[in-house]
Amino acid sequence: MRQYETFELTFRGDMLTEAYAQIPLTAEFICKEEHKTIKGFYDGDGIYKVRFLPRFQGEYHWKVSGIVTGEGSEICKAPLPDAHGLVKAVDTHFEYEDKSLFFPFGTTVYALASQDDALVEETLSTLSTAPFNKIRMCVFPKDYDYNHNEPPYYAFEKKEDGSWDVDRPCLKFWHRFENILNRIIKMGIQVDLILFHPYDRWGFDALDQPDNLRYLDYLLSRLSANPGIWWSLANEYDLSNSKTLSDWEEIEAFVAKNDPYGHLLSCHNCFCFWDAKRPNISHASLQTKGFSELPRWIAKYNKPIMIDECCYEGNLPTFWGSISGREMVYRFWRCIASGAYCTHGETFQSDDDVIWWAKGGVLKGESPERIAFLREIVEALPGPLTPVTGGVLELAQMSPEAMEEGLKQMDPKMHRFIRAISASIHRMEQDDRTAHIAGEHEWASRAGEDAYLWFNDRQCFGEQTLQLPEDKQYLIELIDVWAMTRTVIAENASGNTRICLPGKEGLAILATRC
Amino acid sequence: MRQYETFELTFRGDMLTEAYAQIPLTAEFICKEEHKTIKGFYDGDGIYKVRFLPRFQGEYHWKVSGIVTGEGSEICKAPLPDAHGLVKAVDTHFEYEDKSLFFPFGTTVYALASQDDALVEETLSTLSTAPFNKIRMCVFPKDYDYNHNEPPYYAFEKKEDGSWDVDRPCLKFWHRFENILNRIIKMGIQVDLILFHPYDRWGFDALDQPDNLRYLDYLLSRLSANPGIWWSLANEYDLSNSKTLSDWEEIEAFVAKNDPYGHLLSCHNCFCFWDAKRPNISHASLQTKGFSELPRWIAKYNKPIMIDECCYEGNLPTFWGSISGREMVYRFWRCIASGAYCTHGETFQSDDDVIWWAKGGVLKGESPERIAFLREIVEALPGPLTPVTGGVLELAQMSPEAMEEGLKQMDPKMHRFIRAISASIHRMEQDDRTAHIAGEHEWASRAGEDAYLWFNDRQCFGEQTLQLPEDKQYLIELIDVWAMTRTVIAENASGNTRICLPGKEGLAILATRC
Repeated sequence: MRQYETFELTFRGDMLTEAYAQIPLTAEFICKEEHKTIKGFYDGDGIYKVRFLPRFQGEYHWKVSGIVTGEGSEICKAPLPDAHGLVKAVDTHFEYEDKSLFFPFGTTVYALASQDDALVEETLSTLSTAPFNKIRMCVFPKDYDYNHNEPPYYAFEKKEDGSWDVDRPCLKFWHRFENILNRIIKMGIQVDLILFHPYDRWGFDALDQPDNLRYLDYLLSRLSANPGIWWSLANEYDLSNSKTLSDWEEIEAFVAKNDPYGHLLSCHNCFCFWDAKRPNISHASLQTKGFSELPRWIAKYNKPIMIDECCYEGNLPTFWGSISGREMVYRFWRCIASGAYCTHGETFQSDDDVIWWAKGGVLKGESPERIAFLREIVEALPGPLTPVTGGVLELAQMSPEAMEEGLKQMDPKMHRFIRAISASIHRMEQDDRTAHIAGEHEWASRAGEDAYLWFNDRQCFGEQTLQLPEDKQYLIELIDVWAMTRTVIAENASGNTRICLPGKEGLAILATRC
Repeated sequence: MRQYETFELTFRGDMLTEAYAQIPLTAEFICKEEHKTIKGFYDGDGIYKVRFLPRFQGEYHWKVSGIVTGEGSEICKAPLPDAHGLVKAVDTHFEYEDKSLFFPFGTTVYALASQDDALVEETLSTLSTAPFNKIRMCVFPKDYDYNHNEPPYYAFEKKEDGSWDVDRPCLKFWHRFENILNRIIKMGIQVDLILFHPYDRWGFDALDQPDNLRYLDYLLSRLSANPGIWWSLANEYDLSNSKTLSDWEEIEAFVAKNDPYGHLLSCHNCFCFWDAKRPNISHASLQTKGFSELPRWIAKYNKPIMIDECCYEGNLPTFWGSISGREMVYRFWRCIASGAYCTHGETFQSDDDVIWWAKGGVLKGESPERIAFLREIVEALPGPLTPVTGGVLELAQMSPEAMEEGLKQMDPKMHRFIRAISASIHRMEQDDRTAHIAGEHEWASRAGEDAYLWFNDRQCFGEQTLQLPEDKQYLIELIDVWAMTRTVIAENASGNTRICLPGKEGLAILATRC
């Protein structure tokens, strides 16, 4: 037994052929710091398993009760160097349980596990050298344009009437699925596991609610002890025709209650966001292109914000599948320079319909190497980034009272101007206001006073004045996010610092304390 | 006297040195079709003038009364080939009075008339070969960053106490100003004349309201008979510290009432739009970057929409003065492909602070030649463009009742999907919704069923399916808006037409009936 590593107990018992999803099998794990009761599961062929994720070093006593029984003790040793425990949401960023920071750089291969072995191998090989440390993928197969193949296995056996027998998980499916998950996680990639999705022709999206919960119960008993998994309740929960909002709320509550460890838990939208203020939700997993709203959402939810779908690099005849590599890279930078996080996907038309976003294969786009470049910069930062606040537009959008309070921090010469724009902004209709102000957004974030990051996006500034603390000194780098160059343009800079720029788009400025 | 051409009567009378802005001098012009009473003005040196713009051919009888008098008749001849009368708003586009279409392609030189003669000459020379047929410029000088020069003349003489004597217009100013206007208009360029603006250190923005109206009265008596002028009440009316909303409404009413001809009349915002639904307003003159809202605004105002400020091509250290030439060109295409119109400006830093957007000079950017290319395409269209309506997202945003009505036109296979997204969209907060949906916007417009235009913007489609009428045939051109190429990619196309595309950004598709 090692800290942050799945500990598995195996028992032999009766062969089960019916209703083996939910069996009486629990285990207690007790150490000085914790006492956990968890569920075991039937793994076929008369094999029963209990999986536990120890969070502390030292002696654990365990006791298994139910359909099989046993008792014992284990010394939980120090973790291996690569094991850091679960990723957790802390304020508006992510940390592993051992407090090391985790900056997600995600990608998307929805139906990875539904492809044949050769394609899965190719995908895993691609992932092994790609810059991504998080992947969005589904349990269930996918039916959609370019996605018509049958998976090798389904999650359940069928009843005689052809409907899914959720009480009889298909063990070949789960063994293969876990093998894929584990190989991905071993690469240091977190699996953002999508539990339901609407793109379905087999009926997995149309199970009745008791079956939904039975499926989740079995899945949680198998996978919860795996430290590399996040729960994504759905891809586009709001497009499901079979689940009501209260069904989704029950699913959310069920997962939260039956996951003994508190894995990250989110729910991904097509249009209306799942409310990330809900206590069980660890972070916002958003589909949107409205990135200028990120600082508002970060303040509103006070949790990490992942833009888990921002369109895909590719050439499909859809708005969501046809952004350029450059635009994908800019979207990553917009997120990072707002204190949020972004997820990649790729959708290039292919004669064999093997498109990365759904099936995997190889990456063809221009964004991954630039995302690698960005990841390197972010992982070298002194801490997580949060939005820079307090700008003129932010002030002008506040209530008149809050604005007057904020004006006290501003140059008095600006007061009249800010009051005028505030009055005008408050007369605007909300939709006009949002559309208008998005076009004036500045992407700026900081790690306390240790680092400041500006992404100038498509603006072609010939110069820029950085507002830095007066009592600290900074090294200033000019970053070309597409050419992947970093150039030191100033050292020992303090306070308002004017820098000259080449008047082109795609530049970022990073100021780090020296 | 010629139709659509200023007719001027000159009288000699007393020399006036005081309070000569408002004098008793009116003229009646009567022909079979119209009977107009207009105001004359004092032009200095004992000269009194009456300017009239005849709209009909045939005999006009005129009679001047007041401080000078006279009477006579004139035969109003057919117009010269270049004279088309005033530009008017018709539905959501512009037409000259003679019914020929006018497609505005604007530029911006706010303080043109406040520059010295040499610079004005250079600017006029630039305009003579530039692709613009509309220019936004101010009566009053401008005080702002990069704008610090004194003008050669001011619109008024001063009182002894140093304040402006609005009752004594500075005739040197007006003679020079009119000369500049007339030379611009003679090039076929409409002057969108900005009557007030907030960027002021001389006090022109802080006249009291009676003085504002006196100034307008004199200006209208001088300039109303000029067929090439539009009234822009303000640049950024909402940033004026001296005028209330009701002051602006009074100014709007005054201009509308005292302009005998109904020149185009608009008011330009910084944030909150001036309400273009107001009866005196001919068209919406908007500052915004929220172009995805254009179809909504066109439907809401049911008047032409001019994006008169969408940021400027340049490298200033401001969001508004630093878009690339490419982005400027794309913004023009987004407007045109929405059935709206756009205005250019250029803001490249310069050692001499001569920046086109304010002072003129020469154009340095990459957008003008592409705007010329676009203008050529638009002027060859069979008619004005209006937004293509009826898409899935538009339907889903309607009220449930209106949506159900609209669904009757849609493929029944789509109904369930559209109802799901509609339900989700209606649960969204307005600001989330606006930000979100902007990212899914399709730029599509049409001239009846005679032409269809799609601008694919930054989308990199590898193919596209055009929805064309089944009973008509179209020539389909692929347009590279940056490379300025047009390639015929299909002939005699009808109905749903799939085209292959090179998977790059900046492409437009034009289908015209053949």
